[in-house]
Amino acid sequence: FSSKKPAPDPKVVRSVIDGLKNIYANKVRPVEETYHFADFYSPLLRDSDFDAKPMVLLLGQYSTGKTTFITYLLERNFPGAHIGPEPTTDRFIAIMYNKEERVTPGNALAVQADKPFRGLEMFGTAFLSKFQSSELPAPLLEDLIFIDTPGVLSGEKQRIGRAYDFIKVIQWFSERSDMILLLFDAYKLDISDEFRMAIETLKGQDDKVRLVLNKADLVNSQQLMRVYGALMWSLGKVIKTPEVMRVYIGSFWNEPYQNKENENLFRAEQADLLRDLRNMPANATIRKVNELVKRARLAKVHAYIVSYLKNQMPTMFGHKSKQDELLKTLPQVFETVSRQYNLPMGDFPEVQRFRDNCGRFEFSKHFVKLNQKMIESMDTVLSKDLPDLMQRFPQDKPKAHMLE
Amino acid sequence: FSSKKPAPDPKVVRSVIDGLKNIYANKVRPVEETYHFADFYSPLLRDSDFDAKPMVLLLGQYSTGKTTFITYLLERNFPGAHIGPEPTTDRFIAIMYNKEERVTPGNALAVQADKPFRGLEMFGTAFLSKFQSSELPAPLLEDLIFIDTPGVLSGEKQRIGRAYDFIKVIQWFSERSDMILLLFDAYKLDISDEFRMAIETLKGQDDKVRLVLNKADLVNSQQLMRVYGALMWSLGKVIKTPEVMRVYIGSFWNEPYQNKENENLFRAEQADLLRDLRNMPANATIRKVNELVKRARLAKVHAYIVSYLKNQMPTMFGHKSKQDELLKTLPQVFETVSRQYNLPMGDFPEVQRFRDNCGRFEFSKHFVKLNQKMIESMDTVLSKDLPDLMQRFPQDKPKAHMLE
Ligand SMILES: Nc1ncnc2c1ncn2[C@@H]1O[C@H](COP(=O)(O)OP(=O)(O)OP(=O)(O)O)[C@@H](O)[C@H]1O
Ligand SMILES: Nc1ncnc2c1ncn2[C@@H]1O[C@H](COP(=O)(O)OP(=O)(O)OP(=O)(O)O)[C@@H](O)[C@H]1O
Ligand SMILES: [Mg+2]
Ligand SMILES: [Mg+2]
Repeated sequence: FSSKKPAPDPKVVRSVIDGLKNIYANKVRPVEETYHFADFYSPLLRDSDFDAKPMVLLLGQYSTGKTTFITYLLERNFPGAHIGPEPTTDRFIAIMYNKEERVTPGNALAVQADKPFRGLEMFGTAFLSKFQSSELPAPLLEDLIFIDTPGVLSGEKQRIGRAYDFIKVIQWFSERSDMILLLFDAYKLDISDEFRMAIETLKGQDDKVRLVLNKADLVNSQQLMRVYGALMWSLGKVIKTPEVMRVYIGSFWNEPYQNKENENLFRAEQADLLRDLRNMPANATIRKVNELVKRARLAKVHAYIVSYLKNQMPTMFGHKSKQDELLKTLPQVFETVSRQYNLPMGDFPEVQRFRDNCGRFEFSKHFVKLNQKMIESMDTVLSKDLPDLMQRFPQDKPKAHMLE
Repeated sequence: FSSKKPAPDPKVVRSVIDGLKNIYANKVRPVEETYHFADFYSPLLRDSDFDAKPMVLLLGQYSTGKTTFITYLLERNFPGAHIGPEPTTDRFIAIMYNKEERVTPGNALAVQADKPFRGLEMFGTAFLSKFQSSELPAPLLEDLIFIDTPGVLSGEKQRIGRAYDFIKVIQWFSERSDMILLLFDAYKLDISDEFRMAIETLKGQDDKVRLVLNKADLVNSQQLMRVYGALMWSLGKVIKTPEVMRVYIGSFWNEPYQNKENENLFRAEQADLLRDLRNMPANATIRKVNELVKRARLAKVHAYIVSYLKNQMPTMFGHKSKQDELLKTLPQVFETVSRQYNLPMGDFPEVQRFRDNCGRFEFSKHFVKLNQKMIESMDTVLSKDLPDLMQRFPQDKPKAHMLE
């Protein structure tokens, strides 16, 4: 059911990240700059885009044990961690690595360019005053960021206290997270309307979502089966994917189990969760390699289109009318370029979007001819550099198809 | 989660059934006959309507262990039971009590007035030749009937072999069953399209459906959790009720468990299932009492309406026009009767249906005046006889509201 491979060495992960940065800066980025890639698709990448650590988002009703869960994984407390039976965590906390313990308030955090939280400014001070980072030197954090969140309350109590849009904030974090853990309390299973809404906003991110059925030792075997069945029955209705979500069943803290009937199950599940978390940096890195492959292919096709357009322009007069004609016959242009340079049509951008983005350019003035050397250098990125990087992962074989 | 009360004595159940028959024959039926109840609502009841034993329908993919399950409950084999890893049971088998072992083929069975299978004639010989009863002297069968069914195959194989409409037959049995057990194999979980369709036709019967996750000892704890989760996740999507269905998790045969991790759970679940089956006759009987209460209330209101209509008729002339007028003003008639005799409007029949059923009657000729004695005698049914019967059940208190 789940592979029991050891998590790859964090050092490998970091060496691959450095490799990616180099490849991008020296071979892909020059092409992007020469052919105005950023104006057509997405901004040039910065080192921090490669460095960004995978983020684990915790969501759940209040008191399901989210904060305790994080301290259990870190094997220590973090600054600002409040744990208790009443609703305790009243803010979003980004738990990150730092050699020294430190707490940074949200307003300051959201302006730091090297942190992945700049976008949060749009939620204003109402939200930022309920956001902070909590930095500390826990080994697990060298490769992961945890986002602790305020528990969802049941009923109307919830919305009254809040000055920001909780669902929108959740959405923001979930889109940027690599894993979303939904915590449930086996002793007191509850899915309030607001939590259901939060789960529904995760649509499209389903492949990142995992469930944790926590405090599973507080009930006996038969009760656990009823609770677990009810959880899956209800979530199956809320989450539309036919694929079943992975559930980790256990008690995620360091106290002895109250009911020992399922001790072995709990231990195995807790070990699985830890392993899956430890695998995240490698998986996130593989994803980054994959994204760079896609980006380089697009940059290549883009360079061919732009230089083809440039080539079609008359030397002296009639620039405007030729450009208009080319834009009108763009689908044929794409097909010609595809045939001429043997580029798969699947790599081409959407016609309409490309046409719209041409608006700000004069082909004869802004576009340049094909720089054969530059393209060849980038071709080696796809044929050699990135496959070589992938080789550094122990499980390179099954992942090979990602480069096809 | 589930009440652990002992199943009531089968003798009590049978004495209540006899009581019901008596009450109906001596006090309710005379009212029904006098006021043409059967022409308005439903046929007069026969003894066999009270005697009918609760029916347990087993459904599942092939080889999930349905036939084995029945022999496990009966603690013996039944004539015609075929068990094996390939698709074995090729017909519907009604497993019923008899002092001697006996097999009756479907065509003969469907014409017996004292058996609850007359309606099956409509499926023709194509079905009846794939239907039989298997009678034997197993104690559990004194109060229950089991219906074993051919396992559902996956893919197209299924429909090719069959000359009758499987889904329609399933629907027929499910409407007449008191419990519908869906069996799943934990080692080889499979819900084929046809089985999903069969489950969907159970809509409206959801409260009778229970799930059995069989062969649960063939997998380890973690695998069991994955399979069970997948089952609930998928079924939650197919079955629209928010209420979670009860699942019995275990291995329902007499072999030792292969994997003993969940031994206690399995034993508890198997005990629960047996208890719930043993409770069925009592629950079915309580339902019969409840239905007779409803029927007697309707019979009473009906008698008042009919005798009121009779009273309104002129002695000599103008019958036709008076009857037409009364039928036109039926809603007012109902209200007058309700006020005059202090009868709750909720007990009254639907106006249009009542009006339609009046078509075949001449009020002055066919309807009779109120027989006060007969009504009073039936009133004691509601105020005394049926509550007295209910008292015979140990758990009479919580069920009292059914008589309100
Ligand atoms: N595995 C566990 N088993 C039993 N009790 C637990 C477990 N984990 C946490 N608890 C207890 O549950 C309560 C809530 O824990 P915690 O504050 O970590 O939850 P939370 O989800 O962070 O709540 P909030 O949403 O209010 O921040 C505390 O009393 C804690 O001791
Ligand atoms: N609890 C159990 N654990 C393991 N194996 C079982 C169990 N119950 C039945 N089996 C085995 O599964 C196979 C199928 O059993 P059985 O014939 O009772 O299933 P069935 O559902 O009636 O199949 P069909 O739909 O073909 O009639 C047989 O080999 C039987 O021995
Ligand atoms: Mg908390
Ligand atoms: Mg069978």
